[in-house]
Amino acid sequence: MAGPVEFFFDFSSPYGFLASLRIDDIAARHGREAAWKPILLGAVFKVSGQQPLVEIPLKGEYARHDLARFARLWGTDLRFPPLFPFSSVAASRAFYWIAASDRALATRFARAAFSAAWREERDISRSDTVADIAAAVGADRDDALAALLDPAVKELLRVEVEAAIARGIFGSPFVVVDGEGFWGADRLWQVEAWLERGGW
Amino acid sequence: MAGPVEFFFDFSSPYGFLASLRIDDIAARHGREAAWKPILLGAVFKVSGQQPLVEIPLKGEYARHDLARFARLWGTDLRFPPLFPFSSVAASRAFYWIAASDRALATRFARAAFSAAWREERDISRSDTVADIAAAVGADRDDALAALLDPAVKELLRVEVEAAIARGIFGSPFVVVDGEGFWGADRLWQVEAWLERGGW
Repeated sequence: MAGPVEFFFDFSSPYGFLASLRIDDIAARHGREAAWKPILLGAVFKVSGQQPLVEIPLKGEYARHDLARFARLWGTDLRFPPLFPFSSVAASRAFYWIAASDRALATRFARAAFSAAWREERDISRSDTVADIAAAVGADRDDALAALLDPAVKELLRVEVEAAIARGIFGSPFVVVDGEGFWGADRLWQVEAWLERGGW
Repeated sequence: MAGPVEFFFDFSSPYGFLASLRIDDIAARHGREAAWKPILLGAVFKVSGQQPLVEIPLKGEYARHDLARFARLWGTDLRFPPLFPFSSVAASRAFYWIAASDRALATRFARAAFSAAWREERDISRSDTVADIAAAVGADRDDALAALLDPAVKELLRVEVEAAIARGIFGSPFVVVDGEGFWGADRLWQVEAWLERGGW
């Protein structure tokens, strides 16, 4: 099997959520696996000097309209969370803690966390909510709560975020395939084209 | 015939150039006409607080790589101009001067100006280059040179840029169809979907 389709995202990114709905199918259609990798856009924005999209004049209003329209096109619910932007640190730590022993379970957790944040209006910045989600997909709830405060787990996330920044990942979603980076849910058609043609 | 597909762009925008290669065909396939409307991103960025893409850390390097890759995918040459960013004021004034009497000719001029800037390494920030391009598509060279300094022509461009900003246009390319705005060359697939389905 060829290399994985690396899928970088921030749980607080609505375009990341949209891409998460398609990435596994896209990879699978071309005999690849999607490797999910949550990052923290806050840390990225410190390097690139960017602001959250929805806070930028003109662009922000566009983004809100566009997100609703994009979600309709793909036939999914998307509800803007009451609290936004929100911290995705707890969800991301939980992800890497689960992934350390079971990557498939971590991906299921990620899907559930995205859904909680972007469909169910749940506040995934909270440790207890994240622990509930982890438990719902099969992890131990108390272990999850403990993991969120574990220095080793914090370090796991920090290392992943640093590594992503060092590789030039600056947004969410950001897909890397065969060393080629594609930024944006609206670029998945180019990811597909790349996989189909084996590059160009 | 249904309303036009409004195509907003800055001559100094490489993604605007890429979109210019497809926009007329996309519109024509759905019985529409593309209405080309050059704007000045410099004026837009003053409102939205943005910087030119290629100057943003991480994003800038990505953009240069992405542009070359995007151009290859669409089978077109794209050469980054030696001078970048460059002023698109002269080309935009010439466009609206020509458009005041002949919109089709103005579109031909725009295509030639884009090609000069993004394929031929010509400096379209210069009045004489712009006048040469205008003459090559059939306008009068001396009249073009005079028009670039005409206060009425300056005002024409200023009004168009202000109107675009007032409508929330904040980037290049930016396509408006049936009142719906789509930002980016990588969103033309959604413009197509919109035209095909008559909205969603």
